[in-house]
Amino acid sequence: MNYAIKRKKQVSAKFVPSNLGMTLENDIESTNLFYLNNQIAVIYKKPTPVQVVNVNYPARNKAKITEAYYKTPSTTDFNGIYKGRYIDFDAKETSSKTSFPLKNIHEHQVEHLRNVDKHGGIAFLIIHWKVYNKYFFLPLNVILKYWDNKESGRKSIPYDEFLKNSYEIKLNYNPRIDYLKIIDTYYLK
Amino acid sequence: MNYAIKRKKQVSAKFVPSNLGMTLENDIESTNLFYLNNQIAVIYKKPTPVQVVNVNYPARNKAKITEAYYKTPSTTDFNGIYKGRYIDFDAKETSSKTSFPLKNIHEHQVEHLRNVDKHGGIAFLIIHWKVYNKYFFLPLNVILKYWDNKESGRKSIPYDEFLKNSYEIKLNYNPRIDYLKIIDTYYLK
Repeated sequence: MNYAIKRKKQVSAKFVPSNLGMTLENDIESTNLFYLNNQIAVIYKKPTPVQVVNVNYPARNKAKITEAYYKTPSTTDFNGIYKGRYIDFDAKETSSKTSFPLKNIHEHQVEHLRNVDKHGGIAFLIIHWKVYNKYFFLPLNVILKYWDNKESGRKSIPYDEFLKNSYEIKLNYNPRIDYLKIIDTYYLK
Repeated sequence: MNYAIKRKKQVSAKFVPSNLGMTLENDIESTNLFYLNNQIAVIYKKPTPVQVVNVNYPARNKAKITEAYYKTPSTTDFNGIYKGRYIDFDAKETSSKTSFPLKNIHEHQVEHLRNVDKHGGIAFLIIHWKVYNKYFFLPLNVILKYWDNKESGRKSIPYDEFLKNSYEIKLNYNPRIDYLKIIDTYYLK
């Protein structure tokens, strides 16, 4: 079966009500565009990696990829710079009411965030709890507390841990998900 | 006409003579892998952006992209963190003997590097002069000196400028193109 994938809408920095239905990724891209346009930070989403197998070169047209496959990204989706600091994170969603399953995070993503932290960057996840429609900034140390014990211990991070040891990001008009405010308050004070 | 694109060879951190023929991009990826494996820096190449138009989902197989096009990247190819500093650059080659044409750099790449610099990152280009088989670390200020005058002035950066105001990176076994040495000497001293 063939599915036409809709061309991604241009992310608009101006908030319009129809944007309310945007996905987490779009909300973050719109936030990053706001940061960029207002010269607050330079943070981009990396392109989705694709393994190209075949390309067609029709005369006088641009190259057309006719066979390709999605690859697992080696790192996280977002990185950039804010106030001279290297920023690196990924965004995840969960439909659970009680806990965020660690299987939603890939081993290489955790290793990448660990490396970033070691070299002086700010590493975290943004988690959207769909049932509560709440967004949390999950610091690396909380992730690792569960990740490094998952063989012997529990395989998910309880919602309670988010309430106690993560930072809620209130959804806003513009910027939508103002995660740099958390960095200002807890990392750069 | 159909061209099969060869799967990219795994970049090996170990130097083998056959690697001598690697492209500039592969040389840099091998350098970055050396940095990562030796916990010197965390620097990656961003995936090439692709606009996916059609995807097939054959039963029990992974999604197959059947129509896609290369997009112009919004930023540069490489970024990451070194000694707590945000690093951002692109790599270019020229066959010229006399000057590096500014048309080899895109407007949005220069704007991106300018933004990175404004926010405290280290922004530059690595230029390979194929005729001389020399590699140069071209600092942003040298790029801008020519870029910002290109409407009224010359549209290329003379080789002499590279010899005088850029930093040569000597090709090595491993790491191949040790650009962080330049950063140590001229940016972090």
